[in-house]
Amino acid sequence: MTRFALTVEFDGAPFMGLQRQAHGPSVQQSLEDAAYAITGEEVILHSAGRTDSGVHALAMRSHMDIAKDITAFRLMEALNAKLRPDPVAVTACEVKPDDWHARFSCIGRAYEYRICNRRAPLTLDRGKAWQVSRPLDAGAMHEAAQALVGKHDFTTFRSVHCQAASPEKTLDRLCVRRAGEWVIIEAEARSFLHHQVRSMVGCLALVGQGQWDVAQVGKALAARDRQALGLNAPPDGLYFVKAIYPQES
Amino acid sequence: MTRFALTVEFDGAPFMGLQRQAHGPSVQQSLEDAAYAITGEEVILHSAGRTDSGVHALAMRSHMDIAKDITAFRLMEALNAKLRPDPVAVTACEVKPDDWHARFSCIGRAYEYRICNRRAPLTLDRGKAWQVSRPLDAGAMHEAAQALVGKHDFTTFRSVHCQAASPEKTLDRLCVRRAGEWVIIEAEARSFLHHQVRSMVGCLALVGQGQWDVAQVGKALAARDRQALGLNAPPDGLYFVKAIYPQES
Repeated sequence: MTRFALTVEFDGAPFMGLQRQAHGPSVQQSLEDAAYAITGEEVILHSAGRTDSGVHALAMRSHMDIAKDITAFRLMEALNAKLRPDPVAVTACEVKPDDWHARFSCIGRAYEYRICNRRAPLTLDRGKAWQVSRPLDAGAMHEAAQALVGKHDFTTFRSVHCQAASPEKTLDRLCVRRAGEWVIIEAEARSFLHHQVRSMVGCLALVGQGQWDVAQVGKALAARDRQALGLNAPPDGLYFVKAIYPQES
Repeated sequence: MTRFALTVEFDGAPFMGLQRQAHGPSVQQSLEDAAYAITGEEVILHSAGRTDSGVHALAMRSHMDIAKDITAFRLMEALNAKLRPDPVAVTACEVKPDDWHARFSCIGRAYEYRICNRRAPLTLDRGKAWQVSRPLDAGAMHEAAQALVGKHDFTTFRSVHCQAASPEKTLDRLCVRRAGEWVIIEAEARSFLHHQVRSMVGCLALVGQGQWDVAQVGKALAARDRQALGLNAPPDGLYFVKAIYPQES
């Protein structure tokens, strides 16, 4: 068996999420079906992160073990051919040692959230961003975000469906910047709770619109109560952008 | 009657083009229908440029004359509400004097062409770019492009369906640059022939892949013969980005 590490890009719109689901299409199923069509093997895809329905990935990292004699380049080309017409593509593929694991070896995850801050509805970016009509103060959002950086109990920003053992996480970075009509939020941590990024973005958007003052985000965190959450941002604007491994990057 | 100038963004994929067509949906029809729903008036939309099926616009400029008493802001909001679910949005709207004409007052047009230069199929950018698998030499493409700048007979780069009186045009700017896996081509002129940008991009892509040498683009131009055209690039990657008017910008 050879372990192949894949870098995967996908448009999350038509999927129930990255992981295989009984009730609808998933990125995992698309990739496992493509691998089966090539190898006749029932491979299992393991990935650095889980993503919800509608959430996108620019560079998810995954792995699969394959017995068939095939090079990394040929596997990548064959997967991309079989994945059509699903909006999933393998942008890189390499052989890894057997003890390398896309999920368990991963020591950092980075997400980006894209807000299009304008009154006009989205056209070219429909389903790819969150359109917020009211003007956002990105500076105030960035200031408020800093209350969330560090090791905290993130119960307020956690989905009721979250399966993590503990609500405690260390958020390494949460930056908000404006680029024209876009407000971009970057989040980095070893790992995140279910809905954590979208929940943080939702509250920051309330600050940006002036509905919450800057200090309210820290208060919501301290409440350790899901009821203190202001707003959960929609999945459309969320992108998994990077998985970090030891001896890489 | 009040003349309203509109800045229009649209995803060209579901349309037969910007102009009203007998055989399918158009951006013009979407906007005229929206205006009719608001005012009860059968307005006619005039635009700076024509675009083919599948070609996008970040900032097309158009105008319509309306008798109903309505502010520019209210008209923009109402058009955007009525345009749903079509991927067309009015991003700006202002009152102009009666002698301002979106098409005839326009003294410059700018297009951008986006090539995604990688082996993997497109996912998030599907329909929004031209995917070219072979590595492109953007420097060679830029060098070749300079043979097209200036006043020339562009018969080689003109669709057989072009309705312009003369094949002579003055190309003010044609720049090619690489940004990561993207190769971006920017074109500016007072006006363009039908298919001119896509035809120029197609030939530059042949240069970028090494199938044509740099001098071949100038030779194709000098041939003044449609048969000398190497390749017409697909509409997916083409964006109308700017219309220039006197006393603006």
